[in-house]
Amino acid sequence: MVEKLDQLKAILAEVVDIRSALGVLGWDQETLMPPGGALGRGYQLGTLAKIAHEKFTSDEVGQLLEDLGPAAAQWPPDSDGACLIRFTLREYRKQKRVPSDYVEEDTRVTSNAYSVWEKAKATSDFAGFQPELEKVVALRRRYASFFQPYTHVYDPLLDDYEPGLKTAEVKDIFNVLRPQQVALLQAIAEKTRPDNSFLYVNYPEKDQLDFGKEVITRFGFDWERGREDFSVHPFTSGFNTGDVRITTRVEPQQMEMALFGTMHEAGHGMYEQGVDPALDRTPLIGGASMALHESQSRLWENLVGRSRPFWSFFYPRLQQLFPSQLGNVSLDTFYRGINRIEPSLIRTEADEATYNLHIMLRLELEIALMEGSLEVKDLPEAWNARMKEYLGLTPPDNARGVLQDVHWSQGYFGYFSTYALGNLVSAQIWEALQADIPDLEKNISEGNFKPLLSWLREKVHRHGSKFEPQDLIRRVTGTGITPEPYMRYLTAKYGEIYHL
Amino acid sequence: MVEKLDQLKAILAEVVDIRSALGVLGWDQETLMPPGGALGRGYQLGTLAKIAHEKFTSDEVGQLLEDLGPAAAQWPPDSDGACLIRFTLREYRKQKRVPSDYVEEDTRVTSNAYSVWEKAKATSDFAGFQPELEKVVALRRRYASFFQPYTHVYDPLLDDYEPGLKTAEVKDIFNVLRPQQVALLQAIAEKTRPDNSFLYVNYPEKDQLDFGKEVITRFGFDWERGREDFSVHPFTSGFNTGDVRITTRVEPQQMEMALFGTMHEAGHGMYEQGVDPALDRTPLIGGASMALHESQSRLWENLVGRSRPFWSFFYPRLQQLFPSQLGNVSLDTFYRGINRIEPSLIRTEADEATYNLHIMLRLELEIALMEGSLEVKDLPEAWNARMKEYLGLTPPDNARGVLQDVHWSQGYFGYFSTYALGNLVSAQIWEALQADIPDLEKNISEGNFKPLLSWLREKVHRHGSKFEPQDLIRRVTGTGITPEPYMRYLTAKYGEIYHL
Repeated sequence: MVEKLDQLKAILAEVVDIRSALGVLGWDQETLMPPGGALGRGYQLGTLAKIAHEKFTSDEVGQLLEDLGPAAAQWPPDSDGACLIRFTLREYRKQKRVPSDYVEEDTRVTSNAYSVWEKAKATSDFAGFQPELEKVVALRRRYASFFQPYTHVYDPLLDDYEPGLKTAEVKDIFNVLRPQQVALLQAIAEKTRPDNSFLYVNYPEKDQLDFGKEVITRFGFDWERGREDFSVHPFTSGFNTGDVRITTRVEPQQMEMALFGTMHEAGHGMYEQGVDPALDRTPLIGGASMALHESQSRLWENLVGRSRPFWSFFYPRLQQLFPSQLGNVSLDTFYRGINRIEPSLIRTEADEATYNLHIMLRLELEIALMEGSLEVKDLPEAWNARMKEYLGLTPPDNARGVLQDVHWSQGYFGYFSTYALGNLVSAQIWEALQADIPDLEKNISEGNFKPLLSWLREKVHRHGSKFEPQDLIRRVTGTGITPEPYMRYLTAKYGEIYHL
Repeated sequence: MVEKLDQLKAILAEVVDIRSALGVLGWDQETLMPPGGALGRGYQLGTLAKIAHEKFTSDEVGQLLEDLGPAAAQWPPDSDGACLIRFTLREYRKQKRVPSDYVEEDTRVTSNAYSVWEKAKATSDFAGFQPELEKVVALRRRYASFFQPYTHVYDPLLDDYEPGLKTAEVKDIFNVLRPQQVALLQAIAEKTRPDNSFLYVNYPEKDQLDFGKEVITRFGFDWERGREDFSVHPFTSGFNTGDVRITTRVEPQQMEMALFGTMHEAGHGMYEQGVDPALDRTPLIGGASMALHESQSRLWENLVGRSRPFWSFFYPRLQQLFPSQLGNVSLDTFYRGINRIEPSLIRTEADEATYNLHIMLRLELEIALMEGSLEVKDLPEAWNARMKEYLGLTPPDNARGVLQDVHWSQGYFGYFSTYALGNLVSAQIWEALQADIPDLEKNISEGNFKPLLSWLREKVHRHGSKFEPQDLIRRVTGTGITPEPYMRYLTAKYGEIYHL
């Protein structure tokens, strides 16, 4: 059995090597690659994805998993070995349903669609993107078909990002959440909005970036094992625990964007850096699911980064960097300003009270596209209608509407809902943290993030993908994904700010 | 046959995709990768190299080549198809001798050795690098052993960089060249050296980089299909004709380094960008050999970049950028300054009259290491002894001695002599250019590099690796590699500068 486990691990290590290489190629494509490289990059990605898929779904892997299964059932259930077999078996059964040629085509088409989207967004040209998106949607529907019979066509897609969770469960959670979010938003809408005009003056880019780096360095982001670059759409990409890269974007007149974006991505990055290095070169590296990943990014961005204790420590430093912009703005005014609630067009810049509505909009559209009840050509109209309904806004162009997000170009259907779920989980984790670390807020107000990061490392990060995500959430928070803690958090915070 | 050719092309396309991915990973390792990524990168490179090798040396490829061979012999010999079969068959027969496990180990070990070298060079610590270099040397000797029987142990290594050329031929060329170079150097040593102190004052880095970009943009380097980054050791890496990247390094007190380094790498880059895109995803992309590659880089760096016509166009612009540094330096003084001959420690910064001596030194040491007559531990001593003998200098530390070059860490034994050969070929090509373009110097003095680049594209670049390098050199220059044109060039140029 030891020999068979070693054989399996050797094959999986190579699969993970190829996936890491794919990660580097994808990262490069979004950060640095010159336009002329797009065609070749699509081929490279397609070929490597196909090879990784063939290797992973080989009969040899299947036989080894079958042979090892009974033995692994006797191993301590939380041991690396038992978790490896359980996780790999689940993934093997899924991937075995997908032909390698499909994987190659999917990867190549989405690589090209990404490049087309990048240009289309820059010129707000949905018509230019439509043919590519139609190909992507067709591919994703074909992908779902490999998993028939399913309860819902969207289930197989969701499962790739949130293993084990069903579309019906997400709908149930959102159905509880939506009226509460809407009610909170209506209560806030009746109040005077805090001033935040000081955020939209000129902040030199370099100083913004330096401050962001200073913050996340203090959080505990490890620069020996990571870097920060620029991309149109910020993201985090971890190739192994030794090389985890975040990206950001910066605009002189929008200082919130780089600042909170950097904290957000650092939250993802510290998760990947915090996985037990013993899991490197196994399929268990990386986060357990996208909701768990997003719980980490949103926790650092919002629960920490938009809190009073955080700014009581960092605001004097920010004022020192930007004396003409913030010298006359009090801490309290700044805190209210960065927590101003206001429906807006761009998801990544949305405040905590409206963010989830952006997600619900996308989830409904995705489901409709997958069900076939919505055609790609009608997407801008459907988008704008829902924006009007949910947020009372009409995008002035498609760049600030249906084209704003990168996900669909890359074929990431099933991904969006995990952003809202991540918000919920972040608040669940925060309540667990507060119970375990009574001095949490005091630590933060002193710029001491070590107890917080250590707790997250111990409870969440180090496990990588060892546990099923719903199981891990239960281990950490005591329950499955539930909206109450997040609504408690929002109500308390914004009740105070808005005197509700 | 058409079907079999398509089958072969499909496999080769995937092999080339993997090699391109390897190129991206290697480029990233040398430019951006955080230190923590070194271990994982070694595994990724090793795994991909092994897969590419297995795929390329598969029985299927062997069978297809065998089936296609007789037919291809009937195709027009210069056709893409005939060249593809000829080139691939030669490479197949070579790679077939090398076990895939060796390829994996070699790639992984050299990836790690590169990281160790980077640190060792920074601290001038040969002892820290020695164990890694011993592994690399042992691997390279093992590699040579796969090609027994050979005339010389160094032949198989040389063949990887300069296909078809033998160690004895290189020695013959160098034996003709050495006394002529030494005689020229002695004649120059008796003369007064031109002043070049103005080159070693402070030149702001950004302005240096901007000027370098301006120059190579005018040369014809295509930024839509390329980029420039930083690395410890400048290099060029082309992943396909759409994505060709150069690197540079810059020091405020050494303006020659970034300037001529950038022109040099752009020479490599324009070669890769100039290959016929129809050869993308075939093994025929990229340059025909390292000597041909180096002929291009040295041509742009020296024949163009250190010439009077070039500076008669660009010097006013350079003075405008650096008025305090160069405002009082005449064009003639500047020209003589950048062409000052003086034995120096660093190969990449060596002048045209001493450069080849740096190469001869390395070639002798490499051959001795491969023959087993020199041990790695004795390398610094042997290096310093030859530096004293050939150039009259003793390195103050190993960073400026035996550790200066990246090549050995990466296992590039067999590479160095192509630098000197490239110098010779650059002068051969230049004589052919002058015969074909009577206005060549006038064009250059007007900042018009189009006729020059077009000629190189037509005669050299577009062919990629279609022709055997010695054959291509003969097609372009009328003879094989020969030292006379280079010595004619040096004698004329430095005879004028030094009044010999």
